[in-house]
Amino acid sequence: MEEKKISSAVIKRLPRYYRYLSELLEKGIDRISSQELSKKMNVTASQIRQDFNNFGGFGQQGYGYNVSYLHDEIGKILGLEHHYKVIIVGAGNLGQALANYAGFVKRGFRISGIFDVNPSVIGQTINGIKVMSIDTVETFVQEEGVNIAALTLPKDQASRIAGKLAEMGVEAFWNFASTDLNLPEHVVVENVHLAESLMRLSYKLSEKHS
Amino acid sequence: MEEKKISSAVIKRLPRYYRYLSELLEKGIDRISSQELSKKMNVTASQIRQDFNNFGGFGQQGYGYNVSYLHDEIGKILGLEHHYKVIIVGAGNLGQALANYAGFVKRGFRISGIFDVNPSVIGQTINGIKVMSIDTVETFVQEEGVNIAALTLPKDQASRIAGKLAEMGVEAFWNFASTDLNLPEHVVVENVHLAESLMRLSYKLSEKHS
Repeated sequence: MEEKKISSAVIKRLPRYYRYLSELLEKGIDRISSQELSKKMNVTASQIRQDFNNFGGFGQQGYGYNVSYLHDEIGKILGLEHHYKVIIVGAGNLGQALANYAGFVKRGFRISGIFDVNPSVIGQTINGIKVMSIDTVETFVQEEGVNIAALTLPKDQASRIAGKLAEMGVEAFWNFASTDLNLPEHVVVENVHLAESLMRLSYKLSEKHS
Repeated sequence: MEEKKISSAVIKRLPRYYRYLSELLEKGIDRISSQELSKKMNVTASQIRQDFNNFGGFGQQGYGYNVSYLHDEIGKILGLEHHYKVIIVGAGNLGQALANYAGFVKRGFRISGIFDVNPSVIGQTINGIKVMSIDTVETFVQEEGVNIAALTLPKDQASRIAGKLAEMGVEAFWNFASTDLNLPEHVVVENVHLAESLMRLSYKLSEKHS
C-alpha cells in the first residue's frame, strides 16, 4: 500500500463496500463492474470508481473490478489482518448474541473470553467459549494481551470497568452500554447506542406523519 | 409547539440530549445549568443554549433549565408520545435482547409481538410476550396496526419479509440484519449494521498503531 492519506469520507464508506464485496465472494463472483456494484449498493458508479482509485483498485474496461483483490485491500485498510483479540464483558442476551455472531470470525477477530458477574452463568459455554468471572478479567486482559472489549453490561458498571480495562491495556471499546465512557484520549471507542437509534427511527416516522 | 423547522444538525443531537435528561430525571434532578450539562455531555454550553432555544427551552439566569420540561418537549419532537406498536421478527439472542430491553417501554413503545420460524421457540414467553409463528405475522400486523418492525433475523430472509410487512402496513423498520433492505420510498428504515460498526472500530484502532 502506498502511504497516500485516504479521506475520512471514503473511510466511512469502506465498511459497507467490504460487506458487499464479502457477499459477492460468498456467491463466487470474481469480477464486477462499477455499474453493477452501483446498482446493488445504490451509490453512483463514478463515486465507486473514485473511491476505489484511492487504493489501487483500478477497474479494467471490459473486465471490471477484481472482487477478491478489492476485498483484501479494503480489509487491510480496515485493519482486519491484525486479528485483534476481543473479550465480551456481560453474558446477557446481547453478550450471547455477540458471542454467537459469525461476523467476528469471518472478519478475522478472535473472541478470547466472555465475562460476567452472575454465578449461575459463570462456567457455562457459549459458542465454545467459557464464561469467566468478572473478578478475573483484569488479569486475563493483561496476560492475553486483549485489544478490544465489547461492553454488553449495565450502564452503571460500564464506565468503571472500562476504566480498569483501559489501565490493563485494552485499547478499544465496542460500547453497547447506554452511557458515554470517560476514557483517556488514546483509547478508541465505538458506541452502539440502541436507544438513540430507536429514537432516530421514531423521529423519522413521526416526521412522515406530520 | 410552534411550527418552526428545526435543523437536521439539531435533530441529530436530540436523542443524546434526551438520554442525558432521562438520566437526570431518574436521579431526581429538576434543574441543570447549561454549564453543568456541557461538562457532563462534552458539548459546549453555548451549543446547548442554541439547541434548546429551538424548542422554547430557555434557561433562566440563576435557575438553569427545567429538566422535565425539556425532557418532555424533546420527547414530543422525537415522536415518543405516539406510543408506537413494535414487533420483533426473529427470537434469537438479539431478538431476545430487544424483547428484554427496558428502553422500549421507558420511551413509550409497546412490543406487541415476537415472531420466529423455529418450532422449538414458538409458544415460549419472553419478557411476558409470546413468541408466535412467522406464518401469522402478516395477519397480525394488519389486525393490530403495527407501526415498527425490528428485524433480528438472518440477512437472507430479511428483505423478503420486510417487503411483505411493508405491504401489510408496517411503516418503519429497525434493521439489525446485515443487509440493506430494498423498500418503497415511503417506508422508514434505521439500520444497525453491527459488522460495519465493528470494522469502524478496527479501523480506528489500526490507525492509532500506524
